[in-house]
Amino acid sequence: MPARKKKKQRAPAYAVSEFTPARLSIYLRCLKDLEKSGVKTTSSRDLAERYHLNAAQIRKDLAYFGAFGVRGVGYYTSDLKAHLRGILGLDRPLGIAIVGAGNLGRALADYQGFHQAGFQIVALFDNDPDRVGRQSRGGVVIRHSDELPDVARAGDIDVAVIAVPAPVAQAVVDSIVATGVKAILNFSPSAIKVPAGVKVKNVEFTISLESLSFFLAQGSKANAAPNKIL
Amino acid sequence: MPARKKKKQRAPAYAVSEFTPARLSIYLRCLKDLEKSGVKTTSSRDLAERYHLNAAQIRKDLAYFGAFGVRGVGYYTSDLKAHLRGILGLDRPLGIAIVGAGNLGRALADYQGFHQAGFQIVALFDNDPDRVGRQSRGGVVIRHSDELPDVARAGDIDVAVIAVPAPVAQAVVDSIVATGVKAILNFSPSAIKVPAGVKVKNVEFTISLESLSFFLAQGSKANAAPNKIL
Repeated sequence: MPARKKKKQRAPAYAVSEFTPARLSIYLRCLKDLEKSGVKTTSSRDLAERYHLNAAQIRKDLAYFGAFGVRGVGYYTSDLKAHLRGILGLDRPLGIAIVGAGNLGRALADYQGFHQAGFQIVALFDNDPDRVGRQSRGGVVIRHSDELPDVARAGDIDVAVIAVPAPVAQAVVDSIVATGVKAILNFSPSAIKVPAGVKVKNVEFTISLESLSFFLAQGSKANAAPNKIL
Repeated sequence: MPARKKKKQRAPAYAVSEFTPARLSIYLRCLKDLEKSGVKTTSSRDLAERYHLNAAQIRKDLAYFGAFGVRGVGYYTSDLKAHLRGILGLDRPLGIAIVGAGNLGRALADYQGFHQAGFQIVALFDNDPDRVGRQSRGGVVIRHSDELPDVARAGDIDVAVIAVPAPVAQAVVDSIVATGVKAILNFSPSAIKVPAGVKVKNVEFTISLESLSFFLAQGSKANAAPNKIL
C-alpha cells in the first residue's frame, strides 16, 4: 500500500557505503546459486555459513532496504532475489557505451560477461579515423566520438566505460559528463575526477593481484576456505 | 627473536577471509596517500575517518598480523606501510605471465597499472601460429604456449593471467596448474576449478557495473561520501 505521506524517521546508524552495493551483488549471486540448487528458503545465518559471509552484516544490509525476513521461515529465495535485483536497479535494461576502441575497448565490447549479466553494449566510440567504421571481432561497429553526445541525449547510455589511455582519460570523462551520463566505469589506470552526482568505479586489477601476492606470501596459513561465489 | 618451539595457541576468533587481503591493499593505499601528504603518524580511528573505513576492523586486521600500534602515537605511517607491503608479499618482484594474446591479453600486456604497481610482465603466450612471434603495441613478444612450462619451471611465473575465451579457459588453467603455478587471475567470464593449494581471483567487471546500477537506481539517497582511494 503506497503511503502518500512518509513519517520522518531518525537517521539510522547504518549508512550506505561504497561497499554496500558490492555486498548486495554478492548476496544476489548466492541467491541465484541457491535457486539453481532448488533451495526455496534461506536465512542470514544459512547464507553466511554456505558462502562464508557475515550474518549480522547481511541482516543489516537487507533490513536497511526493507527486505525483512518472514518469521519462522527466513527469506524466500526467489522473493529476496527479485527484491535485490530491484534494489540494484537490475530489473531494467542498462545500456553501456565503451569509449576507446583500442585492444581493451574492443575486448570489452565483445566481453561475454557483460551480456551474461544482462547489460547491453549500445555503442563503441573512438576518435581515430582509422578505427571509425571498423568492427570489433564480435561485430560491434566503432563510431566516431563526435556522435557520443547524440547517443547520450537520446538516453541510451546508462554507464560509460572508459578504455582510453591514461593521459587523455580525464578529458574524455569531462566530455562524457557534459552529456549528462551519471555513471562511469574506469579502466584507465589514472585517478579521474567527476562532479558531485556522478559516480565512478575504478576497475582495479591490482587489488586482485595484491590479494594473490598475499596468498603466495602467507602460504597455507592464509588459505581460508575459498568463497565459491567470488 | 625466532622461537624454535611455538606454543600452541587457541585458535583466534579472527580468521583470514577472502576479503582480508583486499582490505590490506586498501589500507596500503591509504598509507601511501598519507605519506604523500606528509602525515607521519596515524591511528585506526584516523584512517577510518579519513577514508570511510571501519576502525574496529582495521585494528583486528592489523593486530592479527602483528602490526601493533605504539601507545600514545598510533601507527607510524611509513613503518605500517612497510609492514603491510611485507604482509602482502609486495617487498619482492612478482612475475606475471599472460595466457591468451587476443585483444584482452594484448591490452593487459601493455596495461600501465601493472607496471605502476610494481608487477612485471614476464611473458605473453598464445597457441595461434598467426600470433606467435608478433608483439603487443607496447612491445611484449607473443610466445607459443608450448614454452610456458619451461618459463614456469624456471620460477619466473608467480601469477598466470587467463585471457582466453571462456570455452577453453578450464583446459588452459589445468595445463598451467600442472606446471606448478600457484596463483591465477582469471579474466575469462567462466567459473574455473583448481586443486587445493592454488588460488584464483576472478576479475569481476559485473560487480562494479552492478554497483553503478545501484547508485543510478537509488539516486542521491545512496550517494555516500565517495572513498577517494577506491
